[in-house]
Amino acid sequence: MSDDRLARMALGFLVEPGSRELGLLVREVGAPEALSCVVAGHAVTPALAGAVRARLEAAGVRRTAEAAADLVELMTTRADQLGARIVTAADDEWPIALDDLVLASREGSILRRDTDPPMCLWVRGAPRLTDALERAVSMVGARAVTGYGEFVASEFAFGLAEKGWTVVSGGALGVDVTAHRGALAAGGLTVAVLACGIDRYYPAANAGVLERIADEGLVLTEWPPGTHPHKTRFLTRNRVIAAATRGTVVVEAGSRSGARSTLSYARLLHRSPMVVPGPITSAMSVGCHIELRVQGTVPVTRVEEIIEEIGRVGELADPIQGADRPEDALDALQARILDAVRPRLPRSAEEIAAVAGVSGRDARRNLPLLEELGFVVSTGSGYRLARRSPVSRSPEEE
Amino acid sequence: MSDDRLARMALGFLVEPGSRELGLLVREVGAPEALSCVVAGHAVTPALAGAVRARLEAAGVRRTAEAAADLVELMTTRADQLGARIVTAADDEWPIALDDLVLASREGSILRRDTDPPMCLWVRGAPRLTDALERAVSMVGARAVTGYGEFVASEFAFGLAEKGWTVVSGGALGVDVTAHRGALAAGGLTVAVLACGIDRYYPAANAGVLERIADEGLVLTEWPPGTHPHKTRFLTRNRVIAAATRGTVVVEAGSRSGARSTLSYARLLHRSPMVVPGPITSAMSVGCHIELRVQGTVPVTRVEEIIEEIGRVGELADPIQGADRPEDALDALQARILDAVRPRLPRSAEEIAAVAGVSGRDARRNLPLLEELGFVVSTGSGYRLARRSPVSRSPEEE
Repeated sequence: MSDDRLARMALGFLVEPGSRELGLLVREVGAPEALSCVVAGHAVTPALAGAVRARLEAAGVRRTAEAAADLVELMTTRADQLGARIVTAADDEWPIALDDLVLASREGSILRRDTDPPMCLWVRGAPRLTDALERAVSMVGARAVTGYGEFVASEFAFGLAEKGWTVVSGGALGVDVTAHRGALAAGGLTVAVLACGIDRYYPAANAGVLERIADEGLVLTEWPPGTHPHKTRFLTRNRVIAAATRGTVVVEAGSRSGARSTLSYARLLHRSPMVVPGPITSAMSVGCHIELRVQGTVPVTRVEEIIEEIGRVGELADPIQGADRPEDALDALQARILDAVRPRLPRSAEEIAAVAGVSGRDARRNLPLLEELGFVVSTGSGYRLARRSPVSRSPEEE
Repeated sequence: MSDDRLARMALGFLVEPGSRELGLLVREVGAPEALSCVVAGHAVTPALAGAVRARLEAAGVRRTAEAAADLVELMTTRADQLGARIVTAADDEWPIALDDLVLASREGSILRRDTDPPMCLWVRGAPRLTDALERAVSMVGARAVTGYGEFVASEFAFGLAEKGWTVVSGGALGVDVTAHRGALAAGGLTVAVLACGIDRYYPAANAGVLERIADEGLVLTEWPPGTHPHKTRFLTRNRVIAAATRGTVVVEAGSRSGARSTLSYARLLHRSPMVVPGPITSAMSVGCHIELRVQGTVPVTRVEEIIEEIGRVGELADPIQGADRPEDALDALQARILDAVRPRLPRSAEEIAAVAGVSGRDARRNLPLLEELGFVVSTGSGYRLARRSPVSRSPEEE
């Protein structure tokens, strides 16, 4: 195992993910040297040194020269037991999109939290990370999903998976698990990014579906086995969901939903921030509508619109159109004349001209054409609408 | 009566509203001279000359030098009979905002229709036009309104009227009439802009509410009495609704709704284009969501947000916030430490540090503070959450 890989694994265990202090140090002196520093407490803040000391002690590893090797051996054994592998930036399958998080970290003061890229990922599932995430979109949202949100998440995830997109989410109750299930139902790939150890499926209610995701897709996390999920960890985890994918779709979100943080990361990382509009009367769409008011957020109402955002150039959604109507083929003058023809009582061409506000000549010239097209019939006393006129009689466009 | 006023009245009768050809001529030679031209058929297209001839004939007015005076006498008598007045750009109460339609007309090729300002308006109702439209917003939408759209239109119109805004709409079934009713219910001003003569209330089902609007607000139209509504007239009328107000709110709209044309005019005239998001599963919100994807369209979910768009500088909507939580007052480090404290089983400060990924010193320093604030209690064997801890125990933010 390369020193770099070994060091990143150990650092992933010893330091809470996202640490900007550690990230800066690694970028400055490299991972092996950074590991020596944090274990020895050199060139790092007392807070970081103390945190590492606490982790080493809790793991029962003594602070000798072999501490890192001991730790990595423990980690490797544990990964084997759990049917998991550990992936670092030193590995071929590392998703380099995650390295963009250095940008977020640099501007991280906006987010008021540590947002450096992960040191390592614990992974269960056969696909290579790079393959699974090549065309990936994240779909996240409220745990307290409504029937509306469930319908939308399910349909969108199914449709995206069917078109070969990997659906990434957080494995939580509500929108997350509905999105995972939708992708599985389509026989597609789905990736659950956890905020706890890979040995524990949180929430317990989702254990079954998370097992299935590990079998058919990927379950991954930055945290070592045994780690409990905490609120701050969910928020830290969200940066990985945003960074690993080309865009984030928030299906439903309350005003304080954690899903909004995923969208903020997506925006910061120049991924596509997308939201699904919903009833303004629904508390579970409030967060979506707040985000919609942010410049650049894209409202999405169909799978095609999501793909238009994140797909290749030219993967455009078809415009939504009502059914074509026969009268669409008429020019403005003809339409105006046709509008002035009554359904039953015939009018002369002159009366029609006066009502339509066109010249008698224009009326006389166009009425025979309208008759030929089947819109009107001429009677002895003038023109009326054909009984089977193709025109819809409602005057207001709807 | 000034020549200008007289000429505009006659032109409003003789030429279908919106004519760019007429508008250009009036701006070039003035209304009186333009009137002479169209009546004599000089310097105008055969189409316009023919249309005017047809209208004169239909009205039974001979093409003499007195034709215009005869016509205006007829119009004035009819207006008196109907309890209406005729307002032109030569009158004090003319809403000059309508003159912006010259801009739309200039760029009118986009809209493929004639969009010149009205020549005259037939008005019923006591308020002066300028007063009623000083702070006005239009609210329009589908005739086939859903319960959702009815609720929203009603609430928004009521709220806007309550805050002194005039609600302008088209008097149609569905969203329009709901908006008018909402404003009336608040004791506010509302203006119905019709696409037919002021002597006929279309649709008949709305006759009652249109009478009430004429009593308490304003009913107005460009078309002379006796004119029937037609599809093209609805679309022509929509430019007045957009131009007369500071912004247009589309509450519900199908993909081909005429309300979308009002929004296009609002955009073209630099009024605020606003839409209400709705369920993506509702056909009656499809038009809103299509418009939402156009750059610059503002999604609105509360009356305050509408006013923020169209009101004075500084009339800002309060941000939507979830209830404050006690733990919001904690800094990031304290929150992380608190996250690692368990509800029942006490943990030592060192264990808490290891779980939270912070130093033992940071844990030891902050835990007493968290105890003081009532979040945790210390026991012989460490810290656990206080039974009445103010913290919400759900790990995921929602």
